[in-house]
Amino acid sequence: MEFVENAVGRLIPVEIEGRKLKPFAGAFADNGGGRKASPLIPVTKPGQEKLCSIKESIEKSGLKDGMTISFHHHLRDGDYVVNMTVDEIARIGIKDLTLAPSALFPCHKPLIEHIKNGVITKIEGSMNGPVGEYVSYGGLPKLAVLRTHGGRARAIEDGDLHIDVAFLAASSADDYGNANGVDGISAFGPMAYGYADAMYADKVVIVTDDLVPYPCAPCTIAATHVDYVVVVDKIGDPERIVSGTTRITRSPTRLLIAKYAAQFIQESGYLKDGFSFQTGAGGISLAVTKILGEIMIEEGIKGSFINGGLSSYAVELYKKGLFHVLYDGQVFDRGVIESFRNDVKHIETPMTMYANYHSKGCLVNRLDVGFLGATEVDVDFNVNVNTHSDGLLLHGIGGHPDVAAGCKLSLITIPSYRKRIPVVREKVTTVTAPGETIDAIVTERGIAINPRRVDLIDRLKKSDLPIVTIEKLKDRVEKITGKPEPPRLKDRVIALIEYRDGTIIDVVREVEK
Amino acid sequence: MEFVENAVGRLIPVEIEGRKLKPFAGAFADNGGGRKASPLIPVTKPGQEKLCSIKESIEKSGLKDGMTISFHHHLRDGDYVVNMTVDEIARIGIKDLTLAPSALFPCHKPLIEHIKNGVITKIEGSMNGPVGEYVSYGGLPKLAVLRTHGGRARAIEDGDLHIDVAFLAASSADDYGNANGVDGISAFGPMAYGYADAMYADKVVIVTDDLVPYPCAPCTIAATHVDYVVVVDKIGDPERIVSGTTRITRSPTRLLIAKYAAQFIQESGYLKDGFSFQTGAGGISLAVTKILGEIMIEEGIKGSFINGGLSSYAVELYKKGLFHVLYDGQVFDRGVIESFRNDVKHIETPMTMYANYHSKGCLVNRLDVGFLGATEVDVDFNVNVNTHSDGLLLHGIGGHPDVAAGCKLSLITIPSYRKRIPVVREKVTTVTAPGETIDAIVTERGIAINPRRVDLIDRLKKSDLPIVTIEKLKDRVEKITGKPEPPRLKDRVIALIEYRDGTIIDVVREVEK
Repeated sequence: MEFVENAVGRLIPVEIEGRKLKPFAGAFADNGGGRKASPLIPVTKPGQEKLCSIKESIEKSGLKDGMTISFHHHLRDGDYVVNMTVDEIARIGIKDLTLAPSALFPCHKPLIEHIKNGVITKIEGSMNGPVGEYVSYGGLPKLAVLRTHGGRARAIEDGDLHIDVAFLAASSADDYGNANGVDGISAFGPMAYGYADAMYADKVVIVTDDLVPYPCAPCTIAATHVDYVVVVDKIGDPERIVSGTTRITRSPTRLLIAKYAAQFIQESGYLKDGFSFQTGAGGISLAVTKILGEIMIEEGIKGSFINGGLSSYAVELYKKGLFHVLYDGQVFDRGVIESFRNDVKHIETPMTMYANYHSKGCLVNRLDVGFLGATEVDVDFNVNVNTHSDGLLLHGIGGHPDVAAGCKLSLITIPSYRKRIPVVREKVTTVTAPGETIDAIVTERGIAINPRRVDLIDRLKKSDLPIVTIEKLKDRVEKITGKPEPPRLKDRVIALIEYRDGTIIDVVREVEK
Repeated sequence: MEFVENAVGRLIPVEIEGRKLKPFAGAFADNGGGRKASPLIPVTKPGQEKLCSIKESIEKSGLKDGMTISFHHHLRDGDYVVNMTVDEIARIGIKDLTLAPSALFPCHKPLIEHIKNGVITKIEGSMNGPVGEYVSYGGLPKLAVLRTHGGRARAIEDGDLHIDVAFLAASSADDYGNANGVDGISAFGPMAYGYADAMYADKVVIVTDDLVPYPCAPCTIAATHVDYVVVVDKIGDPERIVSGTTRITRSPTRLLIAKYAAQFIQESGYLKDGFSFQTGAGGISLAVTKILGEIMIEEGIKGSFINGGLSSYAVELYKKGLFHVLYDGQVFDRGVIESFRNDVKHIETPMTMYANYHSKGCLVNRLDVGFLGATEVDVDFNVNVNTHSDGLLLHGIGGHPDVAAGCKLSLITIPSYRKRIPVVREKVTTVTAPGETIDAIVTERGIAINPRRVDLIDRLKKSDLPIVTIEKLKDRVEKITGKPEPPRLKDRVIALIEYRDGTIIDVVREVEK
């Protein structure tokens, strides 16, 4: 196999499985061009009905061996829809499918059986947990492709990822397919991850456990884009659908990181009127959200918007009038759904609106500060969110590289080591987000500012924050943890890490057992 | 020129101006197929700015001789944006443009000068008033094409109408192009007519008189689909923006028609729980809305949705709990905007969601009753809404044929004659909606049920409503008005009336002066 080095120094195959790869060339090297994909021209006449069983929907959709099916992951680790659909497809006897979910969770472990029996031979989507582990050990016949949230919408719109049939869970829908995620017992919030699927898939099936009289309104996905409606007993386990961390960390280490991050923003000059930010779901993120709110009240600062995934802590800041818009791609806890249902300035953001690089301007471009996580960072400020240091592919990409590239200040807020394994490394195992898009690494043992940000280094010269070089930070951590072991990898490339513009930023190799 | 007879007996050119025409073959003869158009793959990088003058937006967009520009008509007869933009284009010296507005109004009369000076040589869009009259007398060099609301969205999506640059008025927008019609001094409600333009045009310019801090939320059109933002003094005359009839008719004739229509629905069995309807903006429509509400309260009936254009009378029924959803493509009076801004079940309907035949099911398909107007009807129940009996093209199509085709019961509610000219004719001057989609004609002098609706005729056998055959109705009217004069037409075809599926249902010929 022929390889070429990309802009973050990783070797990328020139061609693999018949696909010519474009090596990553820099976060903003791509300039678009050409035209997007074209959806089918359909007709549904008055009186035509859409209600059917999951089995009938598969048969009527014309699903055949070798095709691509998709799902959204708003039901997270509580999802029943992926497993029940693939089970049914397997019973019908269809094989060699590409599975293109926006993400998979531990609850999708049963899919491993369908990989073994040849129903699924390729995955284009993020993997969290057991399926990722199985793929890491070489279990998937064909290559996996992981994309960012914005990158997945881009790939669908550009035609890189053609979906034959999308099966989209809705917590409420009518018999014509108008569907939302805010009503019903399985309410999960926005349906933003499934929006591009609905717009571009040849066939779209809505799967719901709450059939309401026509019209289901408001809807995220309109009947105009739905072929079939399937009613099932339960689309998921309500207890696990909204499964993000909902409590602020009590760990003194993590609280310290949150405190440092908030102070860093304050001193860097971004925390002023019109301020906007995005955080993740973890305990540090929630602590940061809370601390920022306290500072804003104290200093009389009025922000503009919070970009979600949203927690109840974010909604609280909105309710207090500290921010006048909530942008919402997914909810991290149940408390957010009520606000999403009722507040007119709590706005759903389909992934293109959120983060599609091939658009005329997505909203991450207008974000001030992004608080982001990592499994590893390295001295070039490259970030890994996909693999652990042993090489196992255990996490999806999420919107990480999208936010990092778009926002004015991207902060990686992480503990300096986990289970005696250092997080700050010479080279990350996998590059998910390029160092050029990362502004600072905030750990409990020191804060490293990217040398590219001369302005920031200058501005924080007199800060009492523990600002150090990334090399010094790495040394400090290694003094505690020792030098880390390299992962034991085989040659075979088992997954591509696609950057938001469709170029390949890294590959993931098979892990030795 | 070679002609072929279509399914409503009209002679349609086989080919005209290099376009091969598909003759209308029946309301549901078309079965779709093929793929839609593809928008450009754009990139807007962080920091890139969009604010510019109208002149700069024209230049930056790359607008050239022979291209197509579009506008929406939400500002109706109060619009300033079309004239100011075309004036600027004329000053720059660009010629031979196709103008593709969703509709033109009397305020757009100055465009006639730009037709004379060669800036505009073709119009694809509805024309209300003076521009239509000018075109009728042969003033436009190339052929005009008129489409239904749903048909225009279809044409844009299918690629029949490619828009190079869309100039879209917004009553509020931010500097990134997030835009709505509900905020600001020139608020006009939904931006539904411009949605397909924003999704498919190569370049999109938002023109606003209310620039708000980022983010403008909620927005109908997102920054992801906007290239440039232009701030002007005024986008329109607030007094004339929302210019629909806002008062119920006091004419005894028209009140009688409304009463007959309401009774007809009641007796036909459609007025029951789950009932839905759509009306226009005129005095009869408002009276029907009010009367229906009274009957529903009296009989304890709960409807499902009202499909807009909406009046304050419709909002009142919603507020009283008689309907639980308002679907809104345009507002007919100012009172509706407040509800549109605040009520979560007052839903904006882009034209595809409303009425695109090339979709997986638009909402007119689920409508019970449509109350529709006409300039003429004929004994085959064909309806004309475009031309007057003298042949002059003075009105746009609107959603008329869309609603007529989709709804379960389409009623034409019209006076039997106007200014001594009979409305019920042997043959309509122009066929806009085919008779097969029209269920009954309700006039003050009798109600004619389409013979195709045997079920309805049967059901209303014992009604005390003045039900007559269409021929008898025609005779009754002609006894008062006398036999009408035929229009004096030349051979030249000056406009095509396109049915919602893209076939040609009729042509309009030049009128002798």
